[in-house]
Amino acid sequence: MSEWTQLWLDYRKVCDGIEKVNVIVRDFSKENRVIKSLLDEITRGMKGLTGAEISVAIKDEFEGKSEDGTLNVAIQKNDEILAEGYRIFRKGSEVLLEAADEKGALYGTYHILRMTARGELIDGLEKKCDPDNPLRMMNHWDNMDGSIERGYSGRSFFYKNNEVIVDDRTRDYARFMASIGINGVVINNVNVKEAASYMITDRYFDKLKEMSDVFADYGIKMYLSLNFASPIELGGMKVCDPLDPEVIKWWEDKCKEVFTALPDLGGFLVKADSEGRPGPFTYGRTQADGANMLADVVKPYDKLIIWRCFVYNCTQDWRDTKTDRARAGYDYFKDLDGKYHENVILQIKNGPMDFQIREPVSPLLGGLTKTNQMLEVQIAQEYTGQQIDLCYLIPLFKEVLDFKTYCQKDKDTVADIISGRAFGNKNCGMAAVINTGNDKNWTGNDLAAANLYGFGRLAYDMSLSAEEIAREWVAQTFALEKADEDIIVKMLIESRDIYEKYTCPLGIGWMVTPNTHYGPSVDGYEYSRWGTYHRADHLGLGVDRSDKGTGYAMQYYPENASKYNEMEKCPEELLLFFHHVPYSYKLKDGRTLIQYIYDSHFEGESRAEEMAESWEKLKGKISDESFKRVKNRFERQLYNAKEWRDQVNTYFYRKSGIADEKGRKIYE
Amino acid sequence: MSEWTQLWLDYRKVCDGIEKVNVIVRDFSKENRVIKSLLDEITRGMKGLTGAEISVAIKDEFEGKSEDGTLNVAIQKNDEILAEGYRIFRKGSEVLLEAADEKGALYGTYHILRMTARGELIDGLEKKCDPDNPLRMMNHWDNMDGSIERGYSGRSFFYKNNEVIVDDRTRDYARFMASIGINGVVINNVNVKEAASYMITDRYFDKLKEMSDVFADYGIKMYLSLNFASPIELGGMKVCDPLDPEVIKWWEDKCKEVFTALPDLGGFLVKADSEGRPGPFTYGRTQADGANMLADVVKPYDKLIIWRCFVYNCTQDWRDTKTDRARAGYDYFKDLDGKYHENVILQIKNGPMDFQIREPVSPLLGGLTKTNQMLEVQIAQEYTGQQIDLCYLIPLFKEVLDFKTYCQKDKDTVADIISGRAFGNKNCGMAAVINTGNDKNWTGNDLAAANLYGFGRLAYDMSLSAEEIAREWVAQTFALEKADEDIIVKMLIESRDIYEKYTCPLGIGWMVTPNTHYGPSVDGYEYSRWGTYHRADHLGLGVDRSDKGTGYAMQYYPENASKYNEMEKCPEELLLFFHHVPYSYKLKDGRTLIQYIYDSHFEGESRAEEMAESWEKLKGKISDESFKRVKNRFERQLYNAKEWRDQVNTYFYRKSGIADEKGRKIYE
Repeated sequence: MSEWTQLWLDYRKVCDGIEKVNVIVRDFSKENRVIKSLLDEITRGMKGLTGAEISVAIKDEFEGKSEDGTLNVAIQKNDEILAEGYRIFRKGSEVLLEAADEKGALYGTYHILRMTARGELIDGLEKKCDPDNPLRMMNHWDNMDGSIERGYSGRSFFYKNNEVIVDDRTRDYARFMASIGINGVVINNVNVKEAASYMITDRYFDKLKEMSDVFADYGIKMYLSLNFASPIELGGMKVCDPLDPEVIKWWEDKCKEVFTALPDLGGFLVKADSEGRPGPFTYGRTQADGANMLADVVKPYDKLIIWRCFVYNCTQDWRDTKTDRARAGYDYFKDLDGKYHENVILQIKNGPMDFQIREPVSPLLGGLTKTNQMLEVQIAQEYTGQQIDLCYLIPLFKEVLDFKTYCQKDKDTVADIISGRAFGNKNCGMAAVINTGNDKNWTGNDLAAANLYGFGRLAYDMSLSAEEIAREWVAQTFALEKADEDIIVKMLIESRDIYEKYTCPLGIGWMVTPNTHYGPSVDGYEYSRWGTYHRADHLGLGVDRSDKGTGYAMQYYPENASKYNEMEKCPEELLLFFHHVPYSYKLKDGRTLIQYIYDSHFEGESRAEEMAESWEKLKGKISDESFKRVKNRFERQLYNAKEWRDQVNTYFYRKSGIADEKGRKIYE
Repeated sequence: MSEWTQLWLDYRKVCDGIEKVNVIVRDFSKENRVIKSLLDEITRGMKGLTGAEISVAIKDEFEGKSEDGTLNVAIQKNDEILAEGYRIFRKGSEVLLEAADEKGALYGTYHILRMTARGELIDGLEKKCDPDNPLRMMNHWDNMDGSIERGYSGRSFFYKNNEVIVDDRTRDYARFMASIGINGVVINNVNVKEAASYMITDRYFDKLKEMSDVFADYGIKMYLSLNFASPIELGGMKVCDPLDPEVIKWWEDKCKEVFTALPDLGGFLVKADSEGRPGPFTYGRTQADGANMLADVVKPYDKLIIWRCFVYNCTQDWRDTKTDRARAGYDYFKDLDGKYHENVILQIKNGPMDFQIREPVSPLLGGLTKTNQMLEVQIAQEYTGQQIDLCYLIPLFKEVLDFKTYCQKDKDTVADIISGRAFGNKNCGMAAVINTGNDKNWTGNDLAAANLYGFGRLAYDMSLSAEEIAREWVAQTFALEKADEDIIVKMLIESRDIYEKYTCPLGIGWMVTPNTHYGPSVDGYEYSRWGTYHRADHLGLGVDRSDKGTGYAMQYYPENASKYNEMEKCPEELLLFFHHVPYSYKLKDGRTLIQYIYDSHFEGESRAEEMAESWEKLKGKISDESFKRVKNRFERQLYNAKEWRDQVNTYFYRKSGIADEKGRKIYE
């Protein structure tokens, strides 16, 4: 038995009647590393999906007429197609895959295998796919000691005891990533410390080159997170001031060394001036000063600097109601719009806080119009159930992408901005903090792989719906009858709403156990230094971020600002994020706020129970091992859901003194 | 400069006019290890206290007449004195110290030095001292990796990297302990794990013997904390059931080995069935089964088993208002009264919870009348400021000792019970969880050494007042003018009241940051598994432990039970421990409960500020190093006090909606 699963590339036999597959490669070199991977994969996939007896022949041209039971797949170049895009046509037994480049051909190959797995590679098929986002990246928060910051799936498979590991699992990882269109991977934690600081030294170059080569086989560029203080920590300098000529010289020398050793490296990701990390602010410089300095240094090598915008005061006084962490990103970065060099990308979290189950979209997205922007989301479920609780996040990401910023007349959604459609940027896209680890099933909860799969697919094709993606993933992963597939798809689609209902109400967030971020602690962050408050008192709760409060709402373009600014117009799912609301406030459906809190918590927990029961129906239909792993997670989710329900209800009952209208059990 | 201070044995010159000290030892052997230590100490002390020129001569008899400037100290045996007691008489230049044994002589010597330091060794002096408690022990929670559980003074000086250290610091430690009458030290954490499990194997015997010898030089018996699961962990057995003959046999063999290697060992301290530790309950046995088994095994060697009573359900559901952690000790141990063998001692924490700044006295103390009892207190300030905040604990200990249990007509106080006066026990006394570490000043905060000193003095002589002890300690430690001495004594005496005022009101406890236990988090333990709740809602707070609530109040003898059971009769400092009280409830002075909460928190913080200001007056009068260390602690204390004041006030203001009558600043 393998030490790890094959996720959605399991290639179990689902397809009868094909006995032979001929693969013809035209125009592309069969010696090209990506084409080699393509040929390996189509061989492996077609053998698996269509039966053990099949033979796959790699040929230069078709030979004579096709026989019954033969599939001929021709892969050829078409320069009219966009980079990394592809076209698939099927006519009779002939399948034509066209692409402008090897990566497009590889993605198209995975698409053919996906359609084969779902029985959709039918006669007459025409499929045209171009990537929506130039950059589609995974960010690993793996540390070199093997731990993973906010990792819920075991230890790192990239590192152990401060050594880099490159083995068969690395290759399978690269295959998975390529199969969903990922073209960039940042392999180390943004909090660069200890051994990881030495990644840009010859201590690690050999192993990193080896890893980079495996990635290159699958069209993936490797990136490194950078320690902005490297001139101090590695160079023995006294400062890392980005305007200091000696510091710049140090970086120039260092980058020459790095890109000589690792020519395929895509560039660097930098977390500076954030949560205790050093940065330009230390020297009275701007974020642009810091990013541009590095960008200029890496420009000769045609590399990128991806600069995170997660900068805020993390030593706030809870007594201070004027300072608002939600404002920080916009306040720090907006004025610098247009100042960033072409090879700098600002990486912006989807919301202004930190990956809560519900936040408004960051006003920086679209607030910036002259700057390369990358959307950062988190599929590691730090605040959304930690891969114990089921929480399919694609619906959340879809909401973010579809959000109209009003930054211009048309093409103003977040999807338009980060894809480059809005302002014509080339260096932009989407990045996800990944949810993998060395657990056998890669993601702790088998069902959490839907987020891994889904993020890649969505980043490539933002027009896909959350349900289409879920259906693709379920079909490839479990190969079930339609009715059973529907059960899992329904669970996935509903899971985010359920999780939101039993946790933090109406966008307020942060009612989690400090540090671990799993499970409820309503006041856990209420008197802390993290800028994370709900301000609940005996009359109501919520943070006034209107123009009478912290003014955060006014960071949006007027159409959104006016909506968020008024309690009556504010979308209800974000009501408590923007307003301090009395418990007696009537929501649109006539319920009071406090009654909504009680109702949603009873509902969320009860629907979590239903979800767990649904899973029982799949017993015997999926592998026993997988069934049990998920069942165990549901048991823990139910325990968690009850804790949330009871702690939140009790907390607000104790505080408000208002009883549940329906007389359900609220502990005193 | 030394790596560590000499605490109250600094022996700086305070005394003029003595040029020569003759020490005459009669009846005792000068070769006895304790007498040797005595002679070393009196030489060192007298040299220091009276000036560098002095010569100390150890003689058999006085020679001729005393000259001016000569002090003759005769140390002789008197079998009529109780064990470990002593008598001191001075007539002219002759000082007579009498004792029945070497330990008494050593304690008397320290007393002579103490009086010399304070200028009290005057002509005509007669002093008679007998120890109140047979056992006067320190419990170290030091781990073999060098960490200290709940240690706030650096790392362990007993262990480093899983090795036992015996060096000059060990000897100084033993001197300090002997100087305050300590006669037993448990050298390892009650949570015995990892390397510490191997203390009872030959891996550590040599070093432990060496340590035990140093202790023996100062009349101190060494004890070890024992892992009840040793038959499993060391013996490879499947169980540690105390009634299993093979387990008993294993212990018999093991103890033979241990006491052969460490003949001076006093016995074992055991934490069983507590907070995840294994114990008799695992096998359906009673606590008496467990303790008696071990007691029988060690009896041939004349050793003791000290059995901790800190047993409670630490996986309570917060929704469960019937279960009450406070009840647990009495519930588990009361029925077994009289079942424990003669060489078993039950070690009972002063309160029923866990070393909070205010708790009632444990009803087990005196609830048991046929069982050896030892009072356990904690001078490590886990919940009382962690040696950052000043909190002189002797007033708290005095309250506990003076508590009338009503277990019998007379001699019914806790002091009577644990000293053996009440029921004639010989194996009984007091133990403190110690507050030392390898910080230069031993206790983190220089002023925290008052608790270290104070505990020992109090355990020896329970009739001393908290102020007398404070005054003794200040005089020996700082050698100040009377007015300056008064400043520190006043700070010490008031500090507990101040700390209590700005932290948890009226005995409720537990409003601390989970895990660390420093700083406020009002709801931090409110929804936890630890049985630690305040049950605050919009109308009031406190736990109903009356006969209408958990019934805990009824565990006391009727005189106390009736008092605690009724809100109107309950001592106000414990009101919220015993009752759920409306915010509008009028206290005896006419203030409402909520107003008391506000008032006490403003007062506590403001008095902490005054205390910090007092310290400034001592600048230049004590060593600069010591002054700065303490000043730094006061700065941190003030920060902490403000956090407590504001978080507690805001919490209750938000919850009750009742404003401060005096209109002071309460954050919203």
